[in-house]
Order: sequence, then C-alpha cells, then structure tokens
Amino acid sequence: MQAIDLLIEARWVVPVQPHGVVLEHHAVAVDGDRILALLPIADAHAHYAPRERVVLDEHALIPGLVNAHAHNPMTLMRGLADDLPLMRWLQEHIWPAEAKAIGPEFVRDGIELAVAEMLRGGTTCCNENYFFPDVQAATYRRLGFRAMVGLPIIEFPSAWAATRDEYFDRGLAVHDEFRGEPLLGTSFAPHAPYTVSDESFERIRVLSDQLDVPVHLHLHETAYEVDEAKRERGARPFARMQALGIVNDHLIAVHMTQLTDAEIAACADAGVAVVHCPESNLKLASGFCPAEKLRRAGVKVAIGTDGCASNNDLDMFGEMRTAALLAKAVAENASALDAASALRAATLGGALALGWGERIGSIEAGKQADLAAVRLDDIETQPLYNVVSQLVYATGRQQVSDAWIAGVRKLRDRVLADMDLGEIREKARRWRERLAG
Amino acid sequence: MQAIDLLIEARWVVPVQPHGVVLEHHAVAVDGDRILALLPIADAHAHYAPRERVVLDEHALIPGLVNAHAHNPMTLMRGLADDLPLMRWLQEHIWPAEAKAIGPEFVRDGIELAVAEMLRGGTTCCNENYFFPDVQAATYRRLGFRAMVGLPIIEFPSAWAATRDEYFDRGLAVHDEFRGEPLLGTSFAPHAPYTVSDESFERIRVLSDQLDVPVHLHLHETAYEVDEAKRERGARPFARMQALGIVNDHLIAVHMTQLTDAEIAACADAGVAVVHCPESNLKLASGFCPAEKLRRAGVKVAIGTDGCASNNDLDMFGEMRTAALLAKAVAENASALDAASALRAATLGGALALGWGERIGSIEAGKQADLAAVRLDDIETQPLYNVVSQLVYATGRQQVSDAWIAGVRKLRDRVLADMDLGEIREKARRWRERLAG
Repeated sequence: MQAIDLLIEARWVVPVQPHGVVLEHHAVAVDGDRILALLPIADAHAHYAPRERVVLDEHALIPGLVNAHAHNPMTLMRGLADDLPLMRWLQEHIWPAEAKAIGPEFVRDGIELAVAEMLRGGTTCCNENYFFPDVQAATYRRLGFRAMVGLPIIEFPSAWAATRDEYFDRGLAVHDEFRGEPLLGTSFAPHAPYTVSDESFERIRVLSDQLDVPVHLHLHETAYEVDEAKRERGARPFARMQALGIVNDHLIAVHMTQLTDAEIAACADAGVAVVHCPESNLKLASGFCPAEKLRRAGVKVAIGTDGCASNNDLDMFGEMRTAALLAKAVAENASALDAASALRAATLGGALALGWGERIGSIEAGKQADLAAVRLDDIETQPLYNVVSQLVYATGRQQVSDAWIAGVRKLRDRVLADMDLGEIREKARRWRERLAG
Repeated sequence: MQAIDLLIEARWVVPVQPHGVVLEHHAVAVDGDRILALLPIADAHAHYAPRERVVLDEHALIPGLVNAHAHNPMTLMRGLADDLPLMRWLQEHIWPAEAKAIGPEFVRDGIELAVAEMLRGGTTCCNENYFFPDVQAATYRRLGFRAMVGLPIIEFPSAWAATRDEYFDRGLAVHDEFRGEPLLGTSFAPHAPYTVSDESFERIRVLSDQLDVPVHLHLHETAYEVDEAKRERGARPFARMQALGIVNDHLIAVHMTQLTDAEIAACADAGVAVVHCPESNLKLASGFCPAEKLRRAGVKVAIGTDGCASNNDLDMFGEMRTAALLAKAVAENASALDAASALRAATLGGALALGWGERIGSIEAGKQADLAAVRLDDIETQPLYNVVSQLVYATGRQQVSDAWIAGVRKLRDRVLADMDLGEIREKARRWRERLAG
C-alpha cells in the first residue's frame, strides 16, 4: 500500500483526455501537487493509503477550468456601464473610472474578488491581462491561484509605465522576479495592433523567442479594427502580425471575430491559439468568432470570459455553454462545437494556449492536480442521460462543490478555504463608492 | 391601520412598469392574491398591519418571470440527445422516446419536475405547449402554478387524439373544464404551418375569436421551413397565416427567426406577440430572431426557454441574458435590447403575449402578487452599480430566494413550499431508465 496525500473518489470522472470519455466510479490519486493515477475506486483502495479521502457520490470530477482571457482587476467594474456603444462605453465610463482607480490596491482587490468568483465556479487557472503585473503575480501567488500574468505593452503612458522602454523594463523585471514560481507564468501582452507599434512588436517577437513565453494579443476583435487598419496601413492586422513574425506558436490571439479561410489555415499551420470570448463579442456587438471552423481546421481553441466590465461575470460554465450554443447557429450546423469539444476548449484548450498542455487541462497521471467537482444531483440536472452534455448545457457554476489547485483544496463544499467573503464584499463596496462617485 | 395578509419589504423593487425604474427600500402590500400597493417601507409601516412580514435586506423584488414558450413534460428528456442535426435528433431520438413515453403519467411527472425548476429560478408562469392538456391543467392547478395550457392541434394521430375532430373536441372539453380557474388559461396550439391544414387554421381562427383565447404557434423557426413552404405552396408561412386570418392580436408567434421588414411591420400593426427563444434557436442552428428590430417596431416581445430537450434548462435568467447579449451582435449595436428591455420582455412582455397584461407581469396595485426575490449579495454580483444590469448580466437563477404566485409563497429561502425534491428526483431517474433503455 502506497501512502499518498489524497484520494478523490467520484461517481463520474471526465478526464477530457481521452476525448469524450466518462469514467464511472473512478478515483484520482494525488500526491503533493500531482496526479499519480486515475483508476477504478476498487483498484485505488487496493493500492493506496491516502492521508485524506474525499468521496463525491453525486459528482462529476473534471479538470479545473482555464479562463484563457481575463482582465480580473476589472471585476471591480462589473456592471459599471452597460448597453452602450464601444467608444462611448470606453471614453465616458471605463477610462475615466480607470483613471481614478488604477494602482496596486485596485489590482490586488480586483483579483481577490475575481479569485473568489473563479474558484466558486470551478476555474483554477486564468490568463491575466492588465496593468501592474507585479501586483497581479504577488496576489495570485499569495492566494495560491494558477495564473499566467501578462506584461502589458502599449504606446500610451499609464500608471504602470510612462514610456515604451519602461513598459519593457518593468515587464522584464516582473518576469525575472517571478520566474520559477510553481503556479505562475508570464506572457507579453501587447494590447492590440492598433495601440502597439511595429518596433514594439519586433522587440516582443525577439524576447518571446528568447524567454520562451507566449504573446497574449487582442486581434481582429471587430470589423472596424480590420477596416481601419486596411485604410491606414493597407493591410489587415493579421497580415501585419505575420510580416512582423508574431504569428507563431507563441501567439494567443484573442477574439478573432473577423477571419478569412486563409487566415484560419495560417493559424493552424503556425500553431496559433485562438481564445474565443463569445459573451464579450456578443455584448459589445463585436461579431461572431468562427469557433467551429477553427476547431475543424485544427487550430487550438480556448475559451475566455474577458473582463467583467464587458461580460459581466467570470463564469466559465456559462461561457462554455454560450460557446457551444453560438457555434451551432454561426456554423448553421446543430452538431458544431459539441459538448465534449466545448469542455475540452474550456480546459485542455486553455492549457495548450498557455503552453501548459503538459502541466494542466486534463486528468492524467503526471499532471498537476487542478480539479473541480460538480454536483449533478440538483433538480436542474435531472434526469441525467449524458454527463458531458449535462455539464455543458444544463449545469450552473453554483453546482461546483470543490476545487483543488496543485493538490491544495481551495473550495470545500462551496466554502472557500482561505478567503474571507465578508471582507472581499466590503472592499468591493468601497471601490464602488469611489468609482461611481 | 389596514389589516393585510403580507408585507414584503425589499432593499430594491424593480416594478418593470414604469420602465427601467428601481425603487429603494420599498414594500409591496399584498392581500389575498393581489398587490394592494407599492410604497416606501416607512409609509407601509404607517398604513398596514400585515399578518406576515418578509424582510429582504439584500434582495431585489421583481415580477415573477413568465416563460412564454415551454414544452414542460419534455423536461424528462433533458439532454437525452444533443449536438445532432434537427431531423436526426427528432427521428432517431425524440420521437422514438416520446412514442415510448407519452401519456398522462409522463405529462404529470414532467410538469412536476419543471415546476420545481421554474420556481427555484423565479419563474411563476408558463405558456405550455404539449399533448394531454387535461393533465397539464390538472397538474398546474394542483401545484398552484400559473399556466396557459395549449390545446394541441396537429394533422397526425397521437396518444392524445386520433383525428382532427378529436383534437378539437378534446381540446374544447379541456377549455370548458378549466374555464374560470384563477391560475389557468387555455390557448389553441396548432403545432406549425407545415403540420396543420388550412381547414384546421380556419376553425382555430373562428374559435379563438369566439372564446377570446390566444393562438400559440411555432412560426418561421428555420429558413428551411420558409423555403419549403415557398416551394410547396408558393407563399411564405406568414403570408399564408395572414390569408387565413391568423395574424391578429391573438397570435403568439414563437421563434420567428426569418422575418422581412414588412412582416415585422405587419406584426406590429396586427398586435402579434413574438416569443423569442434565443437558446433553442442557437442550439438547433435555427437562426437569429431580430429581437431588437421587433422591439423598435413596437411588436410585443416575450422570451421563452422552449423545451428542455433543446435548451437544456428552464432558466429564464439565462434566457434573458442570452437574449440581451445576442440581440446586440445581431443588431450590430451594443445598445440593442438593453437590460431593462430584456427584463421587461421576460416579465410584462410574456404577460402581454398571453393576454394577461392586466393581470401579471409587473408590480402594480391591482395585479396578482406573482413575485420573485433575488439575493444580490453573492460575491458574483459584487460590486453593485446598477440593479437592473446586475439582474440581467450577472445574476444566476440560484440567487432567487423566494417566489410567490397569487400571494402564496411557493419558494421560501430556496426551499419549495409543497414539493418533495427527493420524490421528483426519483421519478426523473425512473423515466430516464425507461426512455434511455
């Protein structure tokens, strides 16, 4: 009998890899931060002597969800301004609010609120994109939450940096400081083609190669972006990124609502990951990402909520469902982005986008123990014919009972292990007063 | 001091009528099945001596949601078959399952499951469309749930009726039997233009006028339906319905994904109500209903979940959110179907569609006390800038704490007043065994 830290026994396990599989009465053996084995419960009892045993009689155990595009400090701006055209929304509401608020405290408090929400919804990893990556990294580390932190690059001064050189210098210092942190990674996060110069993209390409880190970029979010670029530069932004060498397997391209078949093929060839943010694209009237075409072309497809100022939640169950529903109408095919493919995009797809496909995203021996347990005995998920279908089309995030990151239980029967909800709520109230005032 | 049955004091009240209004620290005075007054809490204390007092410190009180298109017995088929093209889905899965199941027990048990789910999600009224309207009506009456029951008309024999005459005769008998029931109404429910003959529509038109009941019809659900009708009859179904006199203020037209501007104008002129079922339309790849164009044209717009076999839930919060998000991308306008308009469609819009605009759908003196209380202190709805925005874009149905129908409390702090969830769950399991076997 092998002594291990944790044995989780579940009515159903959906490992995501192999694709579409649902195992009944299986157990996940965890030691330290890693998954040792996935095996029938009876076999697990014969092999392992766990220090902790968790029995999930009515639950599906799934890989923790990966939110592949987030601006989590903006959770403090949830619902600050809605139902407005993009430019009025930004210029009259979001930017003035940010001007009042952005700084280390805003980033810290916003991420705390976001982590509480994410864990309660089964999300165990996010791809962060905001200012003050130093505070982001420190906050995620303190909270024990897995995150890739974006090093922002934009050709405008901000509270974080005044000049292009300062953006790069401060970003590289953050990369150095947090290198080797087990739960953290860094990416370059050039804001968008229309706010970042060729010179910056060239520096990013070189550094991303040298440091082997992803490039997290808003790209082809709207038809307007593409049309303006054609008018101003005579080329679509994607073509410009190709010419600058940015279109490669480090690229995490977010939104991508405007894509030709040739661009889709180029993404597949180059190993680009596309992050689909269906609810943000709908809410801001940005357009429809051809998620099913991308998937069929072999492009890595991930799912993200985008920031709470434009969603207005960090609900990856909702986002997965919207992605699966919307893909069908967009593809004019009721079989498009089936439930198993949507769940894969929300887990392994996100992991692959971040370059962490060997580390997280599925329940496999050797991977990190990032897991979420989902109760399926609520009346809203009765009767139960197909577990994967139920998870994607009928399950609400409130059915998540437990979550683990690197083997550490962060949510226990709906209670957050080490966060004070009252305090987080009170901080959110204070920020509301400051931002809405 | 006036003695009354119930005083509900809420942090916020969203009466829906007047449009877009949020009242703080207001109370709803209820006596018997009716709302007596909506007034500031302090005034309520000065005027009323309530037998029961409910204090909702962190809640918004809203009108109960109206699900304007449902096939609730099919809740027992939730997730039976997904991700399939429409005809394979129907022919290989839904119809064979229905052939095994349809009968009074299936209708009764499916509606019980649906009522539990609806109440827990703040829905207090539905527009039902299925076979065995006698069982439907008896079940909704027994459960104290407000429903309009459709009298099915279709040119095929079923377990409910064998011939056209039998459909009409049995339907009219149900209408007679339940006439005057305070929570019930009946409509004619001809299935669709492609399954119902001109002769039946002519009878329906006459009877709907004579009895003053609505006509609940699937119409222009897909482009295929419209194309086939043009090929077979040389006319779009809407034009055929106009010629048959069905396009009038009794018509509840469901889906309507294919509409010309002239058809939209005709709907407005005739007083037709359109039920938008965005999630069903997405999932079955049916198309996009022009919800914002309809609203701007002055058409009555309501929202429905459709049946659980194609949704897969009865979540009107989710449906309202999807409607609001999708309308923006379809209209290419981020201001389309704003939060207040989406909430109105999900409440008063549904009431108006059913011809019950004087009875339910808003919190106004003289209306029935159909109400839902929604907790807004969950971490997922923090911070709180705008109550209506939060209800539509960030709130999950699990935040519904209480619900009343005609002044009777059906849900009390998440607990159903008079339903046994264990028994409902067990029945659902038995149906799954029978249907999946």
